[in-house]
Amino acid sequence: MALLFKSDVDRPDSWIPALRTALPGMEVRKWPEVGDPAEIDYALVWQPPEGFLASLPHLKAILSIGAGIDHLTRDPKLPRHLPLVRMVEPGLTSGMTEFVVMQSLFHHRRLLDYLDQQDRKVWRELAPVAAWQRRVGVMGLGELGADAVDRLVRLRFDVAGWSRSRRALPGAACFAGQEELPAFLARSDILVCLLPLTEETDSILNAQLFAQLPKGACVINVGRGEHLVEQDLLAALETGQIDSATLDVFRDEPLPPDSPFWSHPRVVVTPHIASMTIPETAAEAMAEAIRTLEAGGTPPGLVDLARGY
Amino acid sequence: MALLFKSDVDRPDSWIPALRTALPGMEVRKWPEVGDPAEIDYALVWQPPEGFLASLPHLKAILSIGAGIDHLTRDPKLPRHLPLVRMVEPGLTSGMTEFVVMQSLFHHRRLLDYLDQQDRKVWRELAPVAAWQRRVGVMGLGELGADAVDRLVRLRFDVAGWSRSRRALPGAACFAGQEELPAFLARSDILVCLLPLTEETDSILNAQLFAQLPKGACVINVGRGEHLVEQDLLAALETGQIDSATLDVFRDEPLPPDSPFWSHPRVVVTPHIASMTIPETAAEAMAEAIRTLEAGGTPPGLVDLARGY
Repeated sequence: MALLFKSDVDRPDSWIPALRTALPGMEVRKWPEVGDPAEIDYALVWQPPEGFLASLPHLKAILSIGAGIDHLTRDPKLPRHLPLVRMVEPGLTSGMTEFVVMQSLFHHRRLLDYLDQQDRKVWRELAPVAAWQRRVGVMGLGELGADAVDRLVRLRFDVAGWSRSRRALPGAACFAGQEELPAFLARSDILVCLLPLTEETDSILNAQLFAQLPKGACVINVGRGEHLVEQDLLAALETGQIDSATLDVFRDEPLPPDSPFWSHPRVVVTPHIASMTIPETAAEAMAEAIRTLEAGGTPPGLVDLARGY
Repeated sequence: MALLFKSDVDRPDSWIPALRTALPGMEVRKWPEVGDPAEIDYALVWQPPEGFLASLPHLKAILSIGAGIDHLTRDPKLPRHLPLVRMVEPGLTSGMTEFVVMQSLFHHRRLLDYLDQQDRKVWRELAPVAAWQRRVGVMGLGELGADAVDRLVRLRFDVAGWSRSRRALPGAACFAGQEELPAFLARSDILVCLLPLTEETDSILNAQLFAQLPKGACVINVGRGEHLVEQDLLAALETGQIDSATLDVFRDEPLPPDSPFWSHPRVVVTPHIASMTIPETAAEAMAEAIRTLEAGGTPPGLVDLARGY
């Protein structure tokens, strides 16, 4: 059996040995050295070229290096009859929770203002708000969202979650569907976007949504750049409807030098690093998914393409 | 019965109503309107003038607005025979944990570097480290330290604690006493100081201690300014022995405009806001302490002056 690894942003020198350790019976090949395409059983990929996966005649399953699969479904020739498995692994989940917790605290504790005060050598206490008086709303309650909600609850924030179908999460109010979106937004002082990118969620962070948040809310986008209408966020920051934002993902990545976000005083820009799969734990998770598929089972992260995630 | 409230940094317009609500049978007076000093039973204070507490002839107990009591014990005329109660209240504990978690994540996830990259419009991923590969060491395991350790453990950091007498905390390695300090320091990539200020801990964050940390460690001081030898930290930052620091407390507060920390690129300065007592919950905690003292009991936070905290 052979597995092909393909990514231009992840480090093959960490991944290839980790995969060989996790999959002792598997031949691991590194893109672009595909060899005979008919020999590839599994493809572990990030942003493969359009039509490439369809060119592997004996492919048994597609494994996504990221938690999102929009980098695959945008390929019109994607072999949709094959099992498609999203990355679900402890390193990715843990990293995302770290980032969401850090940025929620960053905005909650007004660190942007304190860093600005430091620049100006100003020593001034800003009025504190208790965590239980700060309402955090998490959009998207999959593996990543649910883990982030748990840690936010433990930090005593007033947490709510919103998802397409209703979830139940200890300590958090759970909202579901379009009907309950306005009530969820009205109580989100800090809004975290952890949604999958689908037709329904494309451009969901827009002017109409921002207007439904409490005045002076903060927005943290760690989903996909396409969730956000960038001009609408700039306008909402201008009026103060949105106080500040953290953006880790963008429509164009790398973020172009002329983007106004780079130098916006109320925006933290990070280069799509909110969470990064850690090769050691990710290779083990993917090996387990392959073993489950070979045994005829359903691995964690198996995608329902009709639903889109 | 009468209680006197005295602080120049806390907001009496929040505190006085909160105290009146929490202590319905108590007359609450606001400094400097002391009235007849013989009528004051309890003094809830922050940095009272030297000798002032000794001038209250019928004082039954002293209540500190902060978790630390060094602002009281520096008064040579402090009536040491009276019960002295440190602030132990959920708002203070929660706020400190928020700040410690935020700053630990800030250094763990290299946000200082990412903010610097944003300034320069640089889109570059920095090598990630898993939380379980990042060793956080918390010095001081009282109410505040123990709560911070718990949340750091839940974020999957590799956590250790150090205290004078041994504590047992779930999920964390606990070190105790001078003998075990070197082993604790050798495994602290991120060092958090939450110690009480005593003769033993004065200037504990010095060149000798920094040299025992792993190269490139981060230091977070949320104890007292006197814990830190400022010149030693500047020197350790210069050599790279210390990568970066967050300082919330200083020997001189407000931090003087000529302090090199204000503009140091590897130092985050905040104006003693890591944790702030929240009047509503703090007034309730102090009311409970008074009721316990009146009933002859031992309230949480009762200080052992021989030990110093």
